[in-house]
Amino acid sequence: MLPDSITTLIATLGQLPGIGPRSAERIALYLVQTESAAVKQLAETILSAREKIKFCEICGALTEQSPCPICTEPRRDASLVCVVERAVDILSIEKTGAFRGKFHVLGGKISPLDGVEPEDLRIAELEKRLKHEPIKEVVIALGTDVEGDATSNYLAKRIARPGLRISRIAYGLPAGSGLEFADELT
Amino acid sequence: MLPDSITTLIATLGQLPGIGPRSAERIALYLVQTESAAVKQLAETILSAREKIKFCEICGALTEQSPCPICTEPRRDASLVCVVERAVDILSIEKTGAFRGKFHVLGGKISPLDGVEPEDLRIAELEKRLKHEPIKEVVIALGTDVEGDATSNYLAKRIARPGLRISRIAYGLPAGSGLEFADELT
Repeated sequence: MLPDSITTLIATLGQLPGIGPRSAERIALYLVQTESAAVKQLAETILSAREKIKFCEICGALTEQSPCPICTEPRRDASLVCVVERAVDILSIEKTGAFRGKFHVLGGKISPLDGVEPEDLRIAELEKRLKHEPIKEVVIALGTDVEGDATSNYLAKRIARPGLRISRIAYGLPAGSGLEFADELT
Repeated sequence: MLPDSITTLIATLGQLPGIGPRSAERIALYLVQTESAAVKQLAETILSAREKIKFCEICGALTEQSPCPICTEPRRDASLVCVVERAVDILSIEKTGAFRGKFHVLGGKISPLDGVEPEDLRIAELEKRLKHEPIKEVVIALGTDVEGDATSNYLAKRIARPGLRISRIAYGLPAGSGLEFADELT
């Protein structure tokens, strides 16, 4: 019933995270009736962002230039590094405004069932940073699920060395998590 | 904090219908981390749909070729035309499978406050069709809000002519609307 190009568009949009079949249909029908210039601009904005964004060579964050602004920001505490699973986790932490150190993106969690071994993560890169940067404290901010726990424990053991403080961020009740979070990190 | 190209992408995605700020952020972060080929394909699918889709010169439906498949389908009842507000309304009616006539998209509802006058709608096009096509019945399927009512009444008066049956689709309780809908249209 729908023209093929719209059906294809709905299917493609439906692959985006959080977009169900009805949302995909609504967006597709909106797009094909929106003026061409605006649709072209959307397509160009998508392509341009994808082309410009890369991973920071130091911390693994999403950035337009590598090293990223956080890694090159001199006012941030270079002795403190927060280890996160994904590049997007940096955003959540930055939004709280409570953390003034640097980051390290692990790129995943150890999960033998999914074939994710320690060597698939950016652990060697972290060890290299521990050698060359004046890092005195590592805060591990991985999830509290089984893989997050296992990865945190593995990581804490592996990077342990004299003079390095290693901690995990506290996960409390959502209502109080803002405070606990700041406590643990500051 | 976020690279400019991602911020711009989030803002652009946030203009799509049904996409709030959080969804926009989630989709943007997904897109910049998805492999380039898939992102290019998404952009191309959007552009291609926009380029291919036009409005049917007869009924005003969204279509890749004009006249549209419904207007050119010989098995559909050419004596029965359903008037809808927007091209997408055709889809809702087609999904019920209960209507075997043709369509006419009005392109809006009369709304003096929004500056929409009768001459802004595709009423003249409908009158032309009434003259040249073997139409015996017009079913007006506009919304039941104030503008929908006003437009339906205006339209019914304006297209009234001997031998033409004009009706409005019934709006009942949602639970029973499928039946009533079919009753009214068949």
